[in-house]
Amino acid sequence: MTEDALVIFTPSGKRGRFALGTPVLQAARQLGVDLDSVCGGRGICSKCQITPGYGEFPKFGIHVDDEALSEWNAVEERYKSKRGMIDGRRLGCQAKVMGDIVIDVPPESQVHKQVIRKSATQRDIVMDPATRLLYIEVTEPDMHEPTGDFERVKRALAEQWQVEAVEADLAILRRLQPVLRKGEWKITVALYKGNHDHAARILDLWPGYHEGGIYGLAIDLGSTTVAAHLCDLRDGSVLASSGLMNPQIRFGEDLMSRVSYAMMNPGGDVEMTRAVREAINALALSIAAEAHVKPTEIFEVVFVCNPVMHHLLLGIDPVELGQAPFALATSGSLSLPARELDLSNIAPAAQVYVLPCIAGHVGADAAAVALSEEPNKSDEMVLIVDVGTNAEILLGNKTRVLACSSPTGPAFEGAQISSGQRAAPGAIERVVIDPVTKEPRFRVIGSDLWSDDPGFAEATKSSGITGICGSGIIEAVAEMRTAGIVDPSGLIGSAEQVGTPRCRPEGRTNSYLLHDSSAEGGPVIMVTQGDIRAIQLAKSALYAGARLLMDEIGVETVDRVTLAGAFGAHISPKHAMILGMIPDAPLEKVTSAGNAAGTGARIALCNRAARDAIEATVHDILKIETAIEPRFQEHFVNANAIPHAVDPFPHLAGVATLPEVSFNTAGAGSEGRRRRRG
Amino acid sequence: MTEDALVIFTPSGKRGRFALGTPVLQAARQLGVDLDSVCGGRGICSKCQITPGYGEFPKFGIHVDDEALSEWNAVEERYKSKRGMIDGRRLGCQAKVMGDIVIDVPPESQVHKQVIRKSATQRDIVMDPATRLLYIEVTEPDMHEPTGDFERVKRALAEQWQVEAVEADLAILRRLQPVLRKGEWKITVALYKGNHDHAARILDLWPGYHEGGIYGLAIDLGSTTVAAHLCDLRDGSVLASSGLMNPQIRFGEDLMSRVSYAMMNPGGDVEMTRAVREAINALALSIAAEAHVKPTEIFEVVFVCNPVMHHLLLGIDPVELGQAPFALATSGSLSLPARELDLSNIAPAAQVYVLPCIAGHVGADAAAVALSEEPNKSDEMVLIVDVGTNAEILLGNKTRVLACSSPTGPAFEGAQISSGQRAAPGAIERVVIDPVTKEPRFRVIGSDLWSDDPGFAEATKSSGITGICGSGIIEAVAEMRTAGIVDPSGLIGSAEQVGTPRCRPEGRTNSYLLHDSSAEGGPVIMVTQGDIRAIQLAKSALYAGARLLMDEIGVETVDRVTLAGAFGAHISPKHAMILGMIPDAPLEKVTSAGNAAGTGARIALCNRAARDAIEATVHDILKIETAIEPRFQEHFVNANAIPHAVDPFPHLAGVATLPEVSFNTAGAGSEGRRRRRG
Repeated sequence: MTEDALVIFTPSGKRGRFALGTPVLQAARQLGVDLDSVCGGRGICSKCQITPGYGEFPKFGIHVDDEALSEWNAVEERYKSKRGMIDGRRLGCQAKVMGDIVIDVPPESQVHKQVIRKSATQRDIVMDPATRLLYIEVTEPDMHEPTGDFERVKRALAEQWQVEAVEADLAILRRLQPVLRKGEWKITVALYKGNHDHAARILDLWPGYHEGGIYGLAIDLGSTTVAAHLCDLRDGSVLASSGLMNPQIRFGEDLMSRVSYAMMNPGGDVEMTRAVREAINALALSIAAEAHVKPTEIFEVVFVCNPVMHHLLLGIDPVELGQAPFALATSGSLSLPARELDLSNIAPAAQVYVLPCIAGHVGADAAAVALSEEPNKSDEMVLIVDVGTNAEILLGNKTRVLACSSPTGPAFEGAQISSGQRAAPGAIERVVIDPVTKEPRFRVIGSDLWSDDPGFAEATKSSGITGICGSGIIEAVAEMRTAGIVDPSGLIGSAEQVGTPRCRPEGRTNSYLLHDSSAEGGPVIMVTQGDIRAIQLAKSALYAGARLLMDEIGVETVDRVTLAGAFGAHISPKHAMILGMIPDAPLEKVTSAGNAAGTGARIALCNRAARDAIEATVHDILKIETAIEPRFQEHFVNANAIPHAVDPFPHLAGVATLPEVSFNTAGAGSEGRRRRRG
Repeated sequence: MTEDALVIFTPSGKRGRFALGTPVLQAARQLGVDLDSVCGGRGICSKCQITPGYGEFPKFGIHVDDEALSEWNAVEERYKSKRGMIDGRRLGCQAKVMGDIVIDVPPESQVHKQVIRKSATQRDIVMDPATRLLYIEVTEPDMHEPTGDFERVKRALAEQWQVEAVEADLAILRRLQPVLRKGEWKITVALYKGNHDHAARILDLWPGYHEGGIYGLAIDLGSTTVAAHLCDLRDGSVLASSGLMNPQIRFGEDLMSRVSYAMMNPGGDVEMTRAVREAINALALSIAAEAHVKPTEIFEVVFVCNPVMHHLLLGIDPVELGQAPFALATSGSLSLPARELDLSNIAPAAQVYVLPCIAGHVGADAAAVALSEEPNKSDEMVLIVDVGTNAEILLGNKTRVLACSSPTGPAFEGAQISSGQRAAPGAIERVVIDPVTKEPRFRVIGSDLWSDDPGFAEATKSSGITGICGSGIIEAVAEMRTAGIVDPSGLIGSAEQVGTPRCRPEGRTNSYLLHDSSAEGGPVIMVTQGDIRAIQLAKSALYAGARLLMDEIGVETVDRVTLAGAFGAHISPKHAMILGMIPDAPLEKVTSAGNAAGTGARIALCNRAARDAIEATVHDILKIETAIEPRFQEHFVNANAIPHAVDPFPHLAGVATLPEVSFNTAGAGSEGRRRRRG
């Protein structure tokens, strides 16, 4: 046996020689191996558990002797008998290197645990949260060397955790002396250190070694819904996800109507700010209850939201966002105490991080999508559309990223549609129309059966068939086009022209009957000419925005399309392309990213470096203002046709054949019709 | 004429060559000449006025031509006609160098104006306040380059004032957009940049060029009184000084009784915190009214106070300060928003700076005294005593400074004295006793006449003669000792022993009649044996503390004694030395510094570097805890005699002869008496 020994850590493969007697935790730290420790090597926290490997390791060319680690000691025995420990495990702070050894760090002993997101495009979150629990041992006061208790806490944090420049609110200073004495000069602090070079801040403190939870909220504050993930800041796991309607809806359905409300009603912005903050307070309570955690253990909240929601959350009148040049009061990221937003149910010293906004129409929610989907790291030219009342559109690759927003209106969410409704049980969400019989089949939310499957009536009895949600209307219109019920200009043919009694005249236009449940006292669900027009307006705006960015970046096609947003997850790529919502692309390259904004919020919550990254990315994104681009109007008009008046859709042509029909009673075809209207 | 010209600034003497056409302001900045400007050289603020000198300057060896500056221009004409300007003055930002020139910067154009303190030891305050008014021109928003309004304000501050890393509360962000638009993208901000490397912070903002005031409060928060100076942060001038009683007095007269109140009454500390904060709010209003300034133009408050007041101001329970080891919750300086101290009458975003505490018994007030008196820069060994209910004592020179506190009790403030009263009209403040006749003469507050001057009765008729204040009792006891009425042990002789009927028996001791106004319905003012004992206790504690520091630093004498504190200003050095309050020293070297703590607060308010300086000084001061030093008891016992049992007072002997009398009825002298009591 030599004076030092070889230590090899797995899975990292990091290795080094250490003097005999070196604790494994110390060896890990010196090699930069990711081995957790909260108590600083005092055998209290048990976070540094490791699994030593014995015997032959031909891969590493070493033999590990049975005495390669120091003997199982009293500290380990006490911990194992009190808390339990898997056989074969050792505490890294207690076990000392006595010979060549291979040491495995199990995932739960790694600080930077990686949380795999369950989504189409998997993405890891490396844990590096702003708030951590740190156990410290503080020097007792000495009359001969008088310093404040807080100054000695700061010294302990510097010496034991290498954290300099620590601050604390008066509320913490007020509690410090009793806690120090109750813990006999050993305490645990919740320490917050955000990105940028702000001082670290003590958010809470407990006597002795504290094993309580430490949680964060990632909130996607939308115009219509407020969605939150409750995350464990130790390992990034999502303990609960919950949402509620944005109570500001009573002041206006969409963003501009809320800006108008603020403009027309003195103090209207204050009312809306109060409403949304109350909703967030309620959401924090309910999500904590759902996850069985104390709301006061929520130490951080990350917000992503569009600019109007951003201003109303912060208490800033959004009036400037309602008129050119759409100036934000502030576009940068914000780090501030949660109490400044009246978030009173969570930890009193909790901190808020708000992602930066990209522009007056492209908010922190779009920034969060960029953080989650990382177009700036893509080799392919990727188009990302976050479909909502206002669509945020990102286009680019690792060379350059552009962003804009487009006012799609609420049609995609089922509003402004005659039988439209929100996505809830009873809503038609999938539609197939037989191109020969023109008969529809459909599925409703709450059942996996199709309408022509046996047992469908029974399965949908409780919910009924109540209307069409956003993804349902997209499929219905696309299927109507494929089945030749709607022509390229968007006109619905008459019963005679189409050849089905489901086409029914309604004034001077026609409607298509999707489902009649009036016999059971339910609604008659039609797709009207007005519905088609609303969808055409929405999809034209979306397409025109995307096309504008393509012009700007100088491409005619994109390599990949990502549909984001809670709603985006439910859109059928094929139907979206038939409709011409998105540019033509290989169908397998059109995927959904789910609620990418929410995921981006979660990433920013769990990883400080991600905050720096998105701040830099947002700075580099080129912003395009659709409202003042003359070409936007041109693209919008051309995109009115289904799928498009001029742009080719070669990939679409490979998967769907759109019949060449025309129901223009003037007999001039779509071109003639547009000229007449123009 | 050459391509460049020599520019010489007076009074600084700084000189340099500049290209013809260089504005004088720019030349001044490049040379580091102290020339003010708020508007950044736009001819708006007129702060950069200068006086050019023409003709021969043999001292500088140059001739200044009449055309040495560019012609009087329209901007200057407009300013002069609207606001007026002294003849011969020019605006430094408008006048351009066209030839060799001598330029005088008048005092009012210097940023770092020096304010001379009117005190025994004059001291300059160089102006470098944390809060300044800055005029900026902000770029308008651009849809093609969307950035937040706040981000453009930050860029303007960086480009126009070289201030980086600027932050603002939500309340400021909320007001930013309307103010920018009202000012047509020109605004004035009140910018706070404290010491340390914290971000600068916008405290307030106004459209256009704002000429309002910008004020600060320097508050000396004492156990008994709260004293405030209202200072103009532009030039450091004191606009008003005011004070009120500390309302905490109702919870206890001295510090320890307040600590006891907090210990005995749950929530007692909260009550006391509320009381003192309310008082400060009231004081801010009244002092602003007195100076005719808006309270909301008070942007900064600096506090100095003893440790118990410090904790109660901050809302920290002072219980630990009542027992060894007298641990402060925090000893470092504090920078925090004034609203955290519930200071609601001043500017909403006002900032507070609290000086650091030296130790559990030696507070931020002592630190302020050190800042004002600078023992750490003294060549002489200087003793500084801040006389109050608790005396803070500093001893040292540029090599080393020591500090301690000593519990003198309230006797020096007239409390615990039979006829004692606070220093107010009617109180006896000066006393002389004829050594032969033993007859007293005295003066009372409110009149300059002595009691044997003609007209004295008339002059004091309205106030009456109501009692003895602190300085009065010190003089009375010292004069009684000099006149042989009191012996070295502190005993008052009988009428027979002393030879005056003014000595009257009272139980087993004697009292001395100072004044009898019972014929006019007034009080009979006696100095009792109990009064002498109270003064002996107080002066012994003071002397013992000083002596302890002298031991520690290894000196037998001090070169200079400074009496600080509001009360210190009124103490007669000679009488203090006769009494043995302070060690023997040349009488001309015993001076008063007035309210040095208040001056220190004012310095910290007006100069950021002074904050760094006192934080460093406090760190270096060696703290001595009198309560645990065995020698303190020894020194205390020896100091009981008047002036002292063992220490020599050679300088005192040169100016006063103390009769060798002894009134101990046991006939054993003071030595025997002490032994009998021990």
